[in-house]
Amino acid sequence: MASLSVPRHNHLFSRALQARPKPRSLSGPTRIRMSIRENGPSIAVVGVTGAVGQEFLSVLSDRDFPYRSIKMLASKRSAGRRITFEDREYVVEELTAESFDGVDIALFSAGGSISKEFGPIAVDRGAVVVDNSSAFRMDEKVPLVIPEVNPEAMQNIKAGMGHGALIANPNCSTIICLMAATPLHRRAKVLRMVVSTYQAASGAGAAAMEELELQTREVLEGKPPTCKIFKRQYAFNLFSHNAPVLSNGYNEEEMKLVKETRKIWNDKDVKVTATCIRVPVMRAHAESVNLQFERPLDEDTAKDILKNAPGVVVIDDRESNHFPTPLEVSNKDDVAVGRIRRDLSQDGNKGLDIFVCGDQIRKGAALNAIQIAELLL
Amino acid sequence: MASLSVPRHNHLFSRALQARPKPRSLSGPTRIRMSIRENGPSIAVVGVTGAVGQEFLSVLSDRDFPYRSIKMLASKRSAGRRITFEDREYVVEELTAESFDGVDIALFSAGGSISKEFGPIAVDRGAVVVDNSSAFRMDEKVPLVIPEVNPEAMQNIKAGMGHGALIANPNCSTIICLMAATPLHRRAKVLRMVVSTYQAASGAGAAAMEELELQTREVLEGKPPTCKIFKRQYAFNLFSHNAPVLSNGYNEEEMKLVKETRKIWNDKDVKVTATCIRVPVMRAHAESVNLQFERPLDEDTAKDILKNAPGVVVIDDRESNHFPTPLEVSNKDDVAVGRIRRDLSQDGNKGLDIFVCGDQIRKGAALNAIQIAELLL
Repeated sequence: MASLSVPRHNHLFSRALQARPKPRSLSGPTRIRMSIRENGPSIAVVGVTGAVGQEFLSVLSDRDFPYRSIKMLASKRSAGRRITFEDREYVVEELTAESFDGVDIALFSAGGSISKEFGPIAVDRGAVVVDNSSAFRMDEKVPLVIPEVNPEAMQNIKAGMGHGALIANPNCSTIICLMAATPLHRRAKVLRMVVSTYQAASGAGAAAMEELELQTREVLEGKPPTCKIFKRQYAFNLFSHNAPVLSNGYNEEEMKLVKETRKIWNDKDVKVTATCIRVPVMRAHAESVNLQFERPLDEDTAKDILKNAPGVVVIDDRESNHFPTPLEVSNKDDVAVGRIRRDLSQDGNKGLDIFVCGDQIRKGAALNAIQIAELLL
Repeated sequence: MASLSVPRHNHLFSRALQARPKPRSLSGPTRIRMSIRENGPSIAVVGVTGAVGQEFLSVLSDRDFPYRSIKMLASKRSAGRRITFEDREYVVEELTAESFDGVDIALFSAGGSISKEFGPIAVDRGAVVVDNSSAFRMDEKVPLVIPEVNPEAMQNIKAGMGHGALIANPNCSTIICLMAATPLHRRAKVLRMVVSTYQAASGAGAAAMEELELQTREVLEGKPPTCKIFKRQYAFNLFSHNAPVLSNGYNEEEMKLVKETRKIWNDKDVKVTATCIRVPVMRAHAESVNLQFERPLDEDTAKDILKNAPGVVVIDDRESNHFPTPLEVSNKDDVAVGRIRRDLSQDGNKGLDIFVCGDQIRKGAALNAIQIAELLL
């Protein structure tokens, strides 16, 4: 578990960012931590003070990711802050070109411009970069990987081989959607997908979560809401995703779903449309996904396929009206799927509607990146 | 404007329920109220103490609906409460069979079982019932009307003819969706519609709005949320609509969109699928709607059609990322449409994505019912 030196545990957003108790079952009453190992890789975490950076540390610890050493890197502004990680104290260092000397795996989550500047430098110095930004995702030479979906895309890349490489982490909404859609795609081939998202504050960073909380308090007190991160009231409201809108009318977040799906599935013909909306939820995304298949797929078979899919949990209790919610998947590894039903508007059992929820910071970002890093070992 | 005897204006939900300033422009500095007229119909409002009942009164007043007399009806529990309406004080009466003697138009919004019991009684006594519940919507003999869409369905029904009739108000999510989809349907014929909703608390009544506010305060204070109306946390969360789930996996709210669209458009072949989700918003619904047309329809033409559609306002500023939000349409009459764009996943310019927001209590319920009542005069 990681904690910054000034935790704000009285606040909802910081509670939402708090690391959860470890999800593993322990074999005995005590357990010796094995993560620091001489033969493990040397790691760097770039953007360690951000929401995803902090989650990188939580996930590394939760999964006993082996490491020889770990560097905490951030902007000059955050340099000098202290971070406690696995009972040791670290000082955040300013990110420079020299930061990557001797680093085997660099986990980046500090925004696209930092990735564009320092990603290639880290690769030059021999590191394998797992990049959480959108900077390299659509670069043909860079694998875009969800480990449960297309691990083969990075099969020749390993850490500590002396030559660096870049691997891109897909966008959160793509990961969460494809975790559920891919097992069905493998069985019946998805021809077209219509996605509407319900996206949490966390996708815009910890400051956006803080703003949602602050605004909510203000609105409840009858005060005008503080709008710094977003241009409009977020509390008790929702709005089209804040990503820039392109000339085709789609915003960049939506086009990520369109383009990344094609690349990850290695299927240039799959048709995707998406409408991305921010809702006043802290850290987990939901997505309503309508699927059109090439081959018939009934809902019971779909449910069985999803129950057996790695990293997926089915929550689909029609009688008690219990289906996935963002809150239930918050701080959880698995993506939850429910509302699995035959689409009445499509003939021949070739359509399904599903509703998917996944933790944006965890599987949508940090967990997926650490799983990629595990494939590098 | 109407107000119950114990307003709770310090609360967010009651602020959200407050009547807005009149939207009309006045021709002079003073204005004589003309609503009470000897030749106007006698009106009864059933369920007058509920969120929609209160909105009935606001809308009647806003639109200078002419009336000879008005009866405020509710359950025994609410009988005796005082309501101020257009500067007169009324006492809420208990709803009985005799309530409808001499009533020309009865506006019902007290739930399906009250409508089933008292709707036919009111009709027997010569009243035209405009029913906001789902009780009679799919009854073949009962017109289901959105005045901007299918006024012809009720063309033979008038008030004060001595014989009663029933007219059903569609479900809120259907009204809001079809206000935007119908003008496009008329031009290019909708073959299939995929709808995902973002529904406000108000659809479950004033108590649900109150619960959302209470829960939000509790969660911000680190307390467990009070769950009475809904089975789960609503604050900073969302969940599949609370309507019962049917054996086909759709919930009743979703099937309303499917079936009511067919009836209102008088088109048994139109294909609709819907996923209905409750989001932590007070009183306006949003809907992401994917449309598939028989004939080509480009986005500029669609935008022009919508700009000229009655009861619709286009908010579609790509450059400043300004699109409809629930907050902007709250307490407004018009349904707002934006994110109008060619669907990348459909060929031949035969698909559009749009995003629609409408006030659930106003156009989604009370305003639409009063517009129906206006057609009865």
